[in-house]
Amino acid sequence: MNNKAYLTNYDINEALDKYIKLLNIKESTEETETKDSLGRISAEGVYAKISNPFYNCSAMDGIAVKAVKTHGANEKNHIILEKGTDYEEVDTGDPIPESFDAVIMVEDIIKESETSVKIHKSAARWENIRSLGEDIVESTLIIGKNHKIRPVDIGAMIAGGISKVHVYKKPLVGIIPTGDEIVELNDNLKIGDIIEFNSKMFAAQVNEWGMESKVYGIAKDKKEDIIAALEKAYKECDVVIINAGSSAGREDYTYDAVSALGKVHIHGIAIKPGKPAILGEINGKPVIGVPGYPVSAYFVMENIVKPVISKYINFFDEKEEIEAVLSRRVMSSLKYLEFIRVKIGLVDEKYIATPLQRGAGTTMSLVNCDGVLEVPQNYEGYEKGETVKLKLLKTQKEIKNTLVLIGSHDPILDTASDMMKNRNFRYTLSSAHVGSMGGITALRNEECHISTMHLLDEETGEYNIPFIKKYIPGKELVLIKFVKRTQGIMVRKDRKFSVSSIEDIKNNNLSFVNRQKGSGTRLLFDYELKKAGINPEEITGYEREELTHLAVAAAVKNGDADCGIGVYSAANIMNLDFIPIGDEHYDLVMPVKYLGLESFLEFLNTIKSDEYKKQLDKMGGYAYDELGKMIYL
Amino acid sequence: MNNKAYLTNYDINEALDKYIKLLNIKESTEETETKDSLGRISAEGVYAKISNPFYNCSAMDGIAVKAVKTHGANEKNHIILEKGTDYEEVDTGDPIPESFDAVIMVEDIIKESETSVKIHKSAARWENIRSLGEDIVESTLIIGKNHKIRPVDIGAMIAGGISKVHVYKKPLVGIIPTGDEIVELNDNLKIGDIIEFNSKMFAAQVNEWGMESKVYGIAKDKKEDIIAALEKAYKECDVVIINAGSSAGREDYTYDAVSALGKVHIHGIAIKPGKPAILGEINGKPVIGVPGYPVSAYFVMENIVKPVISKYINFFDEKEEIEAVLSRRVMSSLKYLEFIRVKIGLVDEKYIATPLQRGAGTTMSLVNCDGVLEVPQNYEGYEKGETVKLKLLKTQKEIKNTLVLIGSHDPILDTASDMMKNRNFRYTLSSAHVGSMGGITALRNEECHISTMHLLDEETGEYNIPFIKKYIPGKELVLIKFVKRTQGIMVRKDRKFSVSSIEDIKNNNLSFVNRQKGSGTRLLFDYELKKAGINPEEITGYEREELTHLAVAAAVKNGDADCGIGVYSAANIMNLDFIPIGDEHYDLVMPVKYLGLESFLEFLNTIKSDEYKKQLDKMGGYAYDELGKMIYL
Repeated sequence: MNNKAYLTNYDINEALDKYIKLLNIKESTEETETKDSLGRISAEGVYAKISNPFYNCSAMDGIAVKAVKTHGANEKNHIILEKGTDYEEVDTGDPIPESFDAVIMVEDIIKESETSVKIHKSAARWENIRSLGEDIVESTLIIGKNHKIRPVDIGAMIAGGISKVHVYKKPLVGIIPTGDEIVELNDNLKIGDIIEFNSKMFAAQVNEWGMESKVYGIAKDKKEDIIAALEKAYKECDVVIINAGSSAGREDYTYDAVSALGKVHIHGIAIKPGKPAILGEINGKPVIGVPGYPVSAYFVMENIVKPVISKYINFFDEKEEIEAVLSRRVMSSLKYLEFIRVKIGLVDEKYIATPLQRGAGTTMSLVNCDGVLEVPQNYEGYEKGETVKLKLLKTQKEIKNTLVLIGSHDPILDTASDMMKNRNFRYTLSSAHVGSMGGITALRNEECHISTMHLLDEETGEYNIPFIKKYIPGKELVLIKFVKRTQGIMVRKDRKFSVSSIEDIKNNNLSFVNRQKGSGTRLLFDYELKKAGINPEEITGYEREELTHLAVAAAVKNGDADCGIGVYSAANIMNLDFIPIGDEHYDLVMPVKYLGLESFLEFLNTIKSDEYKKQLDKMGGYAYDELGKMIYL
Repeated sequence: MNNKAYLTNYDINEALDKYIKLLNIKESTEETETKDSLGRISAEGVYAKISNPFYNCSAMDGIAVKAVKTHGANEKNHIILEKGTDYEEVDTGDPIPESFDAVIMVEDIIKESETSVKIHKSAARWENIRSLGEDIVESTLIIGKNHKIRPVDIGAMIAGGISKVHVYKKPLVGIIPTGDEIVELNDNLKIGDIIEFNSKMFAAQVNEWGMESKVYGIAKDKKEDIIAALEKAYKECDVVIINAGSSAGREDYTYDAVSALGKVHIHGIAIKPGKPAILGEINGKPVIGVPGYPVSAYFVMENIVKPVISKYINFFDEKEEIEAVLSRRVMSSLKYLEFIRVKIGLVDEKYIATPLQRGAGTTMSLVNCDGVLEVPQNYEGYEKGETVKLKLLKTQKEIKNTLVLIGSHDPILDTASDMMKNRNFRYTLSSAHVGSMGGITALRNEECHISTMHLLDEETGEYNIPFIKKYIPGKELVLIKFVKRTQGIMVRKDRKFSVSSIEDIKNNNLSFVNRQKGSGTRLLFDYELKKAGINPEEITGYEREELTHLAVAAAVKNGDADCGIGVYSAANIMNLDFIPIGDEHYDLVMPVKYLGLESFLEFLNTIKSDEYKKQLDKMGGYAYDELGKMIYL
């Protein structure tokens, strides 16, 4: 265990400034056909070579005339014009023949003969003529330097006589994944294998930024191997990214490898996640060590790699910023600039941001998040209710068209989300799984539009309504019946024990995997334990928590625990046996004021559709006789 | 002149609904490697095939332990653990060896020997373990159907075991330019040639929408030729666009050609510009006739072609919308949905939208505009000061970083704009040329941040300040000295007449090209005429107006007029002779409150730079001794 490299804690802006100065990147340019230049960045200001139009031409189909010969024409006094001397036929875009100086449009002339027309309106000089340069005058700036070329720019450049344009050459970014356990995705994965996917995400990011990428084969965690891979890559590419091994752990050789071939300028930046990034250089080419955890990797790519390598093209698309109200308190370390992933909902015309879990390994949180809150270094964080600036990862329109659901999990939410996007790609269901009580909190805090829950009141045997009345008093809410579903004990088909009731878990000393506190399923389990007179401490694994039915099912399926509790459909999806313990009401609850939201109406139509009900039948364990019934509270 | 086709005036939404129903487009799908799927649209919901991680693994570098064996360890009571029985070394991502159930991180252990460690903290069960499915649980929805795939989606899909993904096949869109005078841009253009550039803009638009394009050769305006081109294209492509010939004029054969091979469903839509669009079909494939004027063409592409052909991929990026205050009244016809191009400035935290000229031929207005105001059919328009919704063509960030300049034109503004983008691509100078008096109006209406002007007070001989005091009283403004520049008479070098003064224009009966009313240059010319005792009516072409110095110079250069008035640099750029008539002060004026705007500071640094002054010397006719001096008014 040789912690050879001391990690610094550079402020990110200082680090970038220092690194970029040391690198002193020189852009290369190339000439491309204007028509092929979409999305490229101009390496020079483009000035029109010719005017458009480059001669005076007719703006209409009609006749070119001498204005002076038309004077006096009106409704009462028609004037006859002779072809050749007084007029010539012109179509839109035709040049104005010499000595003519106005155009009368075809609708305003009456044909007298093959060679004469009658007019009843005079023409002013230059009327209906597009004069030379009306659109673009020779030598006018069409687009400036460092401009990302759009379709309209291509049109205007060609109109201005520019057939070729100088743009920056796209740098080639080499990406080297490293690690002994890292493997390409394949059909024969074994325990201990770690699927390599960061390099593919990096390559896509680099392409999205308008550059080229090349992913190299996986280098083993040996110093020689990493040096060999790096040597090849830096010769072939303009930039090299080494993924993982950038920490100071047992097998982190990136630092040594970069040092062997070039120089590490900075190791360790005051950001979280992403601190162990390495900023190095080999023969003037940037070599950047990016940490392995996908979320750390993503933020290092976006906040360090992107601004550095964008120097090759003098451009990058900046993320849009909005202001949003925080629905929860966010604490942050004074030592780092921290990137907090947030979900954003447009609730009552205000953006509400809800922080997501911070784990650095959670790829799905990147998929699901809508924006990023940056808590600066030396800040302790932000209070609930505070207005903060966010960087958006989606468009405001997408966020506006998203129905934010926070509450209890069921696999049928995934089905609804997928099916809703299929019906109309504009609308999105975004669901966060925090359990039924978490849903109630979110409703009370106005963090979401709608919530899902299944909370049994032990006194009355009634579902959900008693809890809503107790915890969210004074709000106009509507409960929308969703499904009745069957909960039960999930066990592997090849189990070597028997289980037919809650009691058997204790009696046969089976290991159990539980749901998180505040979830309706956990409350149900506690209720069943109490009924059976069992103390939670008597259940092995009672403290092991998972957040969703599928996660519990997966733990059981993989032999991580003997049994767990969850809905029938989850057991079915994972091909587990299922011992029912009871049916329950899984309902939707939302403020009445959101009933008219477009995204909600799309969601409601989705879940009421025959297609959706067919899917529920297929998944099994759901009754939907009351689906869509509304109870105003 | 056979107006064979009667143009209807369909409401755009009705037209689209009807046409899309009749077409009944069937998407095709294809499988692509997940890693290559960036920007593609998913043709199915993607559910994880495996969990990530797919086994319990260490979240840290450290040792895997049995939690129960660590209980009781604290600062005072260290516990010694033996390798093999009590612990195993694990790195981040390593599987947790059977029978162990927690990880202690490397920082919290003290090595005692090669086979033993000391700990001073107990571990809870599952501590520092990433449990199976912590990130992605098998069977969870990763992305829904009809979703545009992003880098993070690629990462998550591969992590979830998805190596290939079903996406929609990109439709191939054939584009046929037509017209007898239409030519490809070349070095031997002659009067009457019209450069073909629409097809290149269309192709870029289609590519931007995530589809493939193929541009065909130019078809002549003959029915047979267009039919032949169309027949070839519709067999090779999924969609065909015919450019121009969609009107009902003399040589508009698109209607006939589509009818000959298939059917025209709709001809004429109630939009402006863009009315004569043709929506047709050949063997189930959409064939759309798009009008020839670039602005009409652009709006038909964006508002008709895009929503129709996006049905092949069930997706399109919608433009973001913002609310803005109109700085001028906008009148519109009741007969059409009208698309009004606007410039947008963020002035005092409010978006201010200023309508641009409406000509359908002005490609540059598409380049320069920031957004589009849609005035619905049956609306007369909007009043000045009204809040309207706009569709954005730029990002809000770009608009925020744009310094809006409205006022008098000089070629050095192009130079500044180009150079500013070169210094820092984030900041943009957007300048609209409406003359000095127009600039004063814009300042008064708060349509812009800054204005340029050169207005001579005949009484005092003072420049600009008397006008500001008179026309914009009561505002805190600052005048920033820009340049002293030389105005004069521009004539061709190969002229066959002599001219050395204003008087010669009249005396030699030279044709003249003037600047628009309200421009300082026109006021100067009027002042000089008055001094010389010449009546404007004695000047041939006095009524012929151009908007910029370069436009006047271009008209002179091309023999359109014998002479014009303008600045030395414009004459120099166009290689004209120049007879000076006097120097004048060309200054900047802005409200004091904008002095701190980032975009202004970047602009100020640009024009104060040596590089810029060098450029002024090169262009000629400018003195800049006072440049940057501020006079508070």
